[in-house]
Amino acid sequence: MSEHPGFTIWFTGLSGAGKTTISEIVAPALRERGLKIEVLDGDVVRTNLSKGLGFSKEDRDTNIRRIAFVADLLSRNGVGVITAAISPYREIRREARSTMGERFIEVYVKASVEACAERDVKGLYEKAFKGEIKEFTGVSDPYEEPEHAEIIVDTENESPEESAQKVIAFVEEKIGVTA
Amino acid sequence: MSEHPGFTIWFTGLSGAGKTTISEIVAPALRERGLKIEVLDGDVVRTNLSKGLGFSKEDRDTNIRRIAFVADLLSRNGVGVITAAISPYREIRREARSTMGERFIEVYVKASVEACAERDVKGLYEKAFKGEIKEFTGVSDPYEEPEHAEIIVDTENESPEESAQKVIAFVEEKIGVTA
Repeated sequence: MSEHPGFTIWFTGLSGAGKTTISEIVAPALRERGLKIEVLDGDVVRTNLSKGLGFSKEDRDTNIRRIAFVADLLSRNGVGVITAAISPYREIRREARSTMGERFIEVYVKASVEACAERDVKGLYEKAFKGEIKEFTGVSDPYEEPEHAEIIVDTENESPEESAQKVIAFVEEKIGVTA
Repeated sequence: MSEHPGFTIWFTGLSGAGKTTISEIVAPALRERGLKIEVLDGDVVRTNLSKGLGFSKEDRDTNIRRIAFVADLLSRNGVGVITAAISPYREIRREARSTMGERFIEVYVKASVEACAERDVKGLYEKAFKGEIKEFTGVSDPYEEPEHAEIIVDTENESPEESAQKVIAFVEEKIGVTA
């Protein structure tokens, strides 16, 4: 495998917006292009790096800082990292961007709370609306939209394949690889 | 920079045995040989991955599992990782070895409690003997010596340069690089 510059595709968006679904299309497509890819999914990270943390602002910030720490280590060594955590707070995403500089690619996976609640793949929105889950992003906890995302994908009006293609095309252009 | 296989040099030993000192000689020497090197020092990791964890067996195990998780991510992508945490428990080191397989190089940095206490670079042993620090490895908490370390360095009878040279020679042989 030849040497490519590393990067971090930082998906951000509500639970159910499509972050994991899109990342699961993007990851193998980029591997086919000869890139080394690691996915730091929200759930994987909560298990391996952040067990014991809750969903208060402080704990969420700690969780996201850990993801950024690991993404920085990998991406500065030529790995393409894909993160798929909600990462609701602008300030911490800005911190991650500042650590990784040009390697940071923010992707806003945009879908309204209503659309995500209608999908409700994990049944979490129903519980959140009933108050059975506290501090649920978009319902009882804030989500701060990105202001300068490199890529916006609108999953209410695009298929996962269309959204993934936007991300793949951006990386192809940036890194200079093709299928 | 050309592509080399990744590996993890896993230093283990008492506080003050010389893990960080040796790693600070090994890291630049391996970089000079064209390898990508990242150091996951105990203190760095406690700040960035494990803030809030204490020194109970459970918390120590969690800390070491996180280091192993990150070392695995890096080393499977061609990075040479150097970890320098006490990692006192055999079982968790075995778990790390089992995750990383052939990439795992265990280095036992051997020095007696008496020798480390005499050096007492950080003044921690004095506090531990007085009971001001609880759960201090080698004093009030166990240290389980490695049984099958790839390398043993005896820092009571070797200079840091001599110890570092053993590690460097092992990696040169394993990866096929030279100065």
